[in-house]
Amino acid sequence: MNQRGAADGCGEPQGFRRHGGAPFTVSVVLPAGGTGERTGLPTPKQFCTVLSRPLISYTIQAFERLSWIQHIVVVVAGESNALMTDIIQRFQHTKVRVVSGGATRHRSIFNGVRALDAGKSGATPDVVIIHDAVRPFVEEDFLFEIAMAAKENGASGAIRPLVSTVIATSSEDYLDHSLERSKYRASEMPQGFLYHVIYQAYQKCSEVDFDFGTECLQLALQHTGTQAKLIEGPPTLWKVTYKRDLAAAESIIKESLCGSACIISDGSERSREFGQCLQRVMGSFDMVSILTVPTGKMGTELDVLPDVIGDASCLSKEWNFIQLSVNGSGLSEVEETVRALEAANRALLHPIVVVWVRFDTSDGLSVMETGARPLLLVELASAAKLQNILLYGIHLHFSEKDAGWSDGSVKRLAELTYTLIHDRNASLAGQMLHA
Amino acid sequence: MNQRGAADGCGEPQGFRRHGGAPFTVSVVLPAGGTGERTGLPTPKQFCTVLSRPLISYTIQAFERLSWIQHIVVVVAGESNALMTDIIQRFQHTKVRVVSGGATRHRSIFNGVRALDAGKSGATPDVVIIHDAVRPFVEEDFLFEIAMAAKENGASGAIRPLVSTVIATSSEDYLDHSLERSKYRASEMPQGFLYHVIYQAYQKCSEVDFDFGTECLQLALQHTGTQAKLIEGPPTLWKVTYKRDLAAAESIIKESLCGSACIISDGSERSREFGQCLQRVMGSFDMVSILTVPTGKMGTELDVLPDVIGDASCLSKEWNFIQLSVNGSGLSEVEETVRALEAANRALLHPIVVVWVRFDTSDGLSVMETGARPLLLVELASAAKLQNILLYGIHLHFSEKDAGWSDGSVKRLAELTYTLIHDRNASLAGQMLHA
Repeated sequence: MNQRGAADGCGEPQGFRRHGGAPFTVSVVLPAGGTGERTGLPTPKQFCTVLSRPLISYTIQAFERLSWIQHIVVVVAGESNALMTDIIQRFQHTKVRVVSGGATRHRSIFNGVRALDAGKSGATPDVVIIHDAVRPFVEEDFLFEIAMAAKENGASGAIRPLVSTVIATSSEDYLDHSLERSKYRASEMPQGFLYHVIYQAYQKCSEVDFDFGTECLQLALQHTGTQAKLIEGPPTLWKVTYKRDLAAAESIIKESLCGSACIISDGSERSREFGQCLQRVMGSFDMVSILTVPTGKMGTELDVLPDVIGDASCLSKEWNFIQLSVNGSGLSEVEETVRALEAANRALLHPIVVVWVRFDTSDGLSVMETGARPLLLVELASAAKLQNILLYGIHLHFSEKDAGWSDGSVKRLAELTYTLIHDRNASLAGQMLHA
Repeated sequence: MNQRGAADGCGEPQGFRRHGGAPFTVSVVLPAGGTGERTGLPTPKQFCTVLSRPLISYTIQAFERLSWIQHIVVVVAGESNALMTDIIQRFQHTKVRVVSGGATRHRSIFNGVRALDAGKSGATPDVVIIHDAVRPFVEEDFLFEIAMAAKENGASGAIRPLVSTVIATSSEDYLDHSLERSKYRASEMPQGFLYHVIYQAYQKCSEVDFDFGTECLQLALQHTGTQAKLIEGPPTLWKVTYKRDLAAAESIIKESLCGSACIISDGSERSREFGQCLQRVMGSFDMVSILTVPTGKMGTELDVLPDVIGDASCLSKEWNFIQLSVNGSGLSEVEETVRALEAANRALLHPIVVVWVRFDTSDGLSVMETGARPLLLVELASAAKLQNILLYGIHLHFSEKDAGWSDGSVKRLAELTYTLIHDRNASLAGQMLHA
């Protein structure tokens, strides 16, 4: 069944660069046929959106970005076929094939496994990883461990310590006994299998297994004698099950997106100084990367912006932008930034935040004059929002008499900016706030 | 040990009015000595704040509001004693006593149980409910079930279906076998006990039980022969364990606080009409209760506002306020509302949102004039924030030529207002937004 004739043993997935070794091939099956009864929501949870993007697209992306993953087969209920195809197109997923599911989870997974067979896809993978569509935060290192353990042992699976004590009940809902926690684990996803192991396990399955079995690892043990290697995974592997889990997922995604800021100065000395001051203060907001660049060549600047190094490596490493204008409007520079981001298709997977900081040093009536909501900002923000770019304005006034900005006002500006970047609230796009 | 001589059998907790029956007394032990390693946060999770209030205060409130709960003993690690005492004072908890914990969970719970002994508190309760400080969403009906089942059976406990398959591991981290999910349950909190059952169970505990036992129900079975009645609880009983759970808890609390809006018109015909229009549109935002009242007597109005009927009965049933001003400033009425809320101590447990909607019907330069950030709003909002009242402004302009407001602008206003009420973002207090 192995079309590439990869060596057994300690080879590593083809394309996995950090380690050397003989290549083997890895593909993925994502069962996504759940109805999401437990969320209490009308939409199955894998299709619920977080920051305007369905959860399943985050999960797909967690695999698609890895060069050593070949194909991703998503198994959906027949009625979700069109929706899934639309998601793949909208978010430009390239490694994905959609397959219709069966009546139960195991029938669906088997459909997915069969779709990876050589006759259909051209090359049967050495290893299949099975994962849930509603566990979007799986990391490369852990997937690599699972793939390697599957290659070596025939099967592997993620486990976690039990959060609650597990008890056996009597037939009438009385306590029979409680299990000793240390001897048991929660079985989670992902799980990995040599292709022929999972294929054979399903081929030998009884109807009862197909209808009521809950655990692929158990089927592999039962029908092929393969004893799965168990690996403790990180807590982020948890399964989005209830409505509250969507809020938790959103908070993780938002946190991961606000770790960086690119401050664009308008070229003036004042703006450069202020940018450095702002950069210092914003550094205290858990932002890991902040840099200041001059305006005027955002198209090329975007190409040279380094990748942001953060913890949440499964999420996009994108920058947030803070554009400074001293006196004068500066809205045309903001427009240029927005256009450059659009052209680079930067907001495909996550909304990008652009904060326009307009500060003026004039005295007297300036608050009244500049405090007005510039209609152009509203219009620009409305157009940008359609491209998934969230544009906000903040006005900051300081008097030349006071010889510049105060620490308090910079701190207040930084706090507001961080709030806008963190919350990514589309309803507030186009608003002009005041620091 | 029963100081009140309550009848055995089917009596109901003293003070529980919805059902009749003979009284029995119920008190609570809340172990809160956890270190919160799993959240990855420096603060133990029971002391982490959600909307500026520590999680444990929400849990205490879930019990304190019930007339049939007599005492609540919170067991904390010695070093958290002062912090806990401060929380009790700040949030005006009245039924709580703080006790120092022991080296393990069971030693701590036993300390709490002993603190309820007659010699110390004046009246030993018939039933003790033990609950986790980090499960803030426990409802009265479920607590009542647990208390009743404990009275009848000697012990009772909440269970939930298993979310993951539970597996037994071999000594070398290979799969040994997986458990049949249908025969097992996750044991959760709350649990209830007749006082003498839990007291006796702990008195007979070995050092090993005290150090390694995880389950009070198991100790009661082992040492007193009491077989606990198990009752399936709602998913909201889950335990705040990881950092993401704090985000989930926050989202549940925020949802529960945005179900109502009290629209205060300025008395003019225009404002009354507009209020009705706004009320209709806001009704589509999942708000269960909206009413419109005239301004000018908020002090008395607050007293006659009905209780909001919502799902989340364990949370405060408070109103959000939307104050309308047509032309003219109207800030003095807003100030009056804020003062009335302060005087009534309405924001003790949750931040209250007041949205000032200022709309003007003049033409021409009005956008420039009224778009300015009124400095008085900022000052009023800063002062209100200290009292946990979040004040925001929204400016809406429409031209008399167009014979009034458009559906689009009212919808936009409703969306902004709902966003402010829902997000309860303290950083944005004092901002003047534009609809």
